[in-house]
Amino acid sequence: MSEAQVHEANVERVRQLLEAGDAAKLHQYLEAFHPSDIADVIESLDDEQRASVLAVLSDEVASATLAEMEEEEHPEELLVADPERVAELVRELSADDAADIIGDLPSAAQQEVLAQLPLTDAAELRDLLAYDEETAGGVMTTDVVSVAESASVNEAIEEIRRQAAEGEDFYSVFVVDRDGRLLGTVSLQDLVLSQPTRRINEVIEPVLTAVPVSMDQEEVARVMSRYNLVSIPVVDPAQRLIGRITFDDVMDIVEAETTEDILRFSGSSAEEYLAGGVGQAIKNRLPWLALALLTTSVAAVVIYLFRSVVEQAVILAAIMPVIAALGGNAGTQALAVTVRRLALDPDRHGTWRVVGKELAVGLVNGAVIGSLAAIIGYLIPEGSVYLGFVVMFAMWGNLIVAGFAGAFVPVLLEKLGADPAVASSVFFTALTDIFGFFFLLGLASWILLPQLG
Amino acid sequence: MSEAQVHEANVERVRQLLEAGDAAKLHQYLEAFHPSDIADVIESLDDEQRASVLAVLSDEVASATLAEMEEEEHPEELLVADPERVAELVRELSADDAADIIGDLPSAAQQEVLAQLPLTDAAELRDLLAYDEETAGGVMTTDVVSVAESASVNEAIEEIRRQAAEGEDFYSVFVVDRDGRLLGTVSLQDLVLSQPTRRINEVIEPVLTAVPVSMDQEEVARVMSRYNLVSIPVVDPAQRLIGRITFDDVMDIVEAETTEDILRFSGSSAEEYLAGGVGQAIKNRLPWLALALLTTSVAAVVIYLFRSVVEQAVILAAIMPVIAALGGNAGTQALAVTVRRLALDPDRHGTWRVVGKELAVGLVNGAVIGSLAAIIGYLIPEGSVYLGFVVMFAMWGNLIVAGFAGAFVPVLLEKLGADPAVASSVFFTALTDIFGFFFLLGLASWILLPQLG
Repeated sequence: MSEAQVHEANVERVRQLLEAGDAAKLHQYLEAFHPSDIADVIESLDDEQRASVLAVLSDEVASATLAEMEEEEHPEELLVADPERVAELVRELSADDAADIIGDLPSAAQQEVLAQLPLTDAAELRDLLAYDEETAGGVMTTDVVSVAESASVNEAIEEIRRQAAEGEDFYSVFVVDRDGRLLGTVSLQDLVLSQPTRRINEVIEPVLTAVPVSMDQEEVARVMSRYNLVSIPVVDPAQRLIGRITFDDVMDIVEAETTEDILRFSGSSAEEYLAGGVGQAIKNRLPWLALALLTTSVAAVVIYLFRSVVEQAVILAAIMPVIAALGGNAGTQALAVTVRRLALDPDRHGTWRVVGKELAVGLVNGAVIGSLAAIIGYLIPEGSVYLGFVVMFAMWGNLIVAGFAGAFVPVLLEKLGADPAVASSVFFTALTDIFGFFFLLGLASWILLPQLG
Repeated sequence: MSEAQVHEANVERVRQLLEAGDAAKLHQYLEAFHPSDIADVIESLDDEQRASVLAVLSDEVASATLAEMEEEEHPEELLVADPERVAELVRELSADDAADIIGDLPSAAQQEVLAQLPLTDAAELRDLLAYDEETAGGVMTTDVVSVAESASVNEAIEEIRRQAAEGEDFYSVFVVDRDGRLLGTVSLQDLVLSQPTRRINEVIEPVLTAVPVSMDQEEVARVMSRYNLVSIPVVDPAQRLIGRITFDDVMDIVEAETTEDILRFSGSSAEEYLAGGVGQAIKNRLPWLALALLTTSVAAVVIYLFRSVVEQAVILAAIMPVIAALGGNAGTQALAVTVRRLALDPDRHGTWRVVGKELAVGLVNGAVIGSLAAIIGYLIPEGSVYLGFVVMFAMWGNLIVAGFAGAFVPVLLEKLGADPAVASSVFFTALTDIFGFFFLLGLASWILLPQLG
């Protein structure tokens, strides 16, 4: 059985148990799964069924399942209707997961849930909810394990036992001074391997890097990936430790940012939710298509202005889309490579040198493809040496423009502080259409028509 | 100073120190950086300078720097010329990083390096080199920390101290039986928090999932990301523990696979190396452009076959690229969303339902954009109600084809066991060109021409 079939079978079994109304059996069946797998099953059910499933799960499993679900898939009505249960569920979670779940609710419902929580928990969540979702503050959890620099290894282990009693995973133990300022870390590994009587300030390691609470999440992911960090401390402007971000958050960020980049690049809205419905997809993509209709209409105007050239040599109408398509393809290549370069390593590649490189690639590939096209232009019916030359130079020119623009536009956007991924293929198709038609028909009116008439 | 400027300044300083020939100062300057940052600086130098820099670094830093460099950037000549130094460097590294560095050398040089290593290390590396680079075996390291199920917590900690003496980071301690078969894990956290006299089989946790040595690296990354695992054990067919893969490997895999997907999607070779030279970029992209020349020539043939239609209504030549471009854009949208869906979660979304959804989106967006285009077709010079109808139905039809094909092709590839990302936008541009021209010119000869003549 493939994984898709296993998934279908699990969903079917849950549906049967729901219909039979056998809560005990459903509980027993589902709790054997990992919360990620329960989340998958739930996302295939309708809202009412989701509510029934969450009702039979223990708080521990139900909360972990909610945390693993896509936020868009949360059964919002259920959550709004029962703030007591939501409060019980979020108490099981780390602060960042709790804030993600509450943050999705209408603000009246948020207040109702927060009112059910102990004062300190509610205050912590209010702090987290105030951060922009796409910054370090929005991603971090405030559940950090920290010890005083003056403690011994043994005292530190005792302290960690106490702090970690709530069961949250941790990978580093942070060392702070008495004002809560971050001084360094001790790894669990070092604690396990050290003699118990050594002092923490003997085994402390400097923090390679801490991120400010306002840093963009994409930048946080880049730092953690660059230095292979399993966890990174988040500090406020006074360098006080206020939270941490772990590798699993980074994986989620990378996934989300990559989806955003690919969708933008293809001229879809970056906000399109992959599992969303038809209506949402229509709404997200229609504006881009309308924009494309507008920009390619400019290309149509170019052709209209040259209509007498087309009338005198209709074969040009057949060649036009070939020039346009090749320009679009070459531009998309240059654009994709440049955008990806900038996404992976803006420091090293966000320079004008990249534009020179793509210009050189366009020059060479344009010459090769232009020559091939020239041979076709010579050999086809109604072809000639003159047509061959026209096709060659039009193709060459268009591929140079495509290579240049494909690198220039994203690099310029990066230099201006904008997201280079905004440069989508929609604009490039139009741009290379316009230049391609202009080159082809302009050259034809200059070189080819005098020979015909 | 921006990060790019800091990088330029660092490179400039290293160049100055190299020219001054001051090895001691260069050593002192560079060793203050993280190996990832040294790797960045080195990649901006030429081969001779790279060799000089690696010569002044300590084995520990030089080896970590090599491990952080892109494999394509390794100073291969230097490595081939000095197998003794390479052997010293790889002894500093974990087995997977060592195998990556040696695996890039010509096989004669590989043997020379292996001959310099202790027999057991060489045997371990030979085993690793035998695995396909893109499978779990090619990514894993064999440096695992494991304890016997029969040990006490205290004995286990002693054993871990012994095994971890080489300094490799670890996140889980695996528990094996006397034949080396994987039974479970104990987290460091649990060991730190447990009473020293408890037995390992009291604190053992079942392994959520272990991956077979032959599993594709992309699948490994998906499993680890799905279950938020910091480290995953790799087993042979007899369930014996032979290695582990950690979260930092997963980040590298996700980065590489994403780059591959985006480049493929844009019709670039998936093997194009982002920091590579102009020559390599030309070689990688040219075949795709030649292929595009071939496929779009089919679209040109369609137009040629309808040339009498174009002759009778040259305005059609101006409308053609608009229909083609919109089809291309809509197809690219459907394709990008579908490919990304399949990449993130093939189990849930790799179904024909996705095709139905994209067909519905094409139907609606085609009707809207087709209606807008019809208004343009009516209002423009030489426009008419008949031209409006022709443009509308051609646009509509092309957007339906684009939506259907954009989802159908990748889903079909997935069902056939092929990589859906192979479906690049190059094919789609040609496909929607062909259908667009056929619809437009066919409808024009049927509806529009009788009105004109």
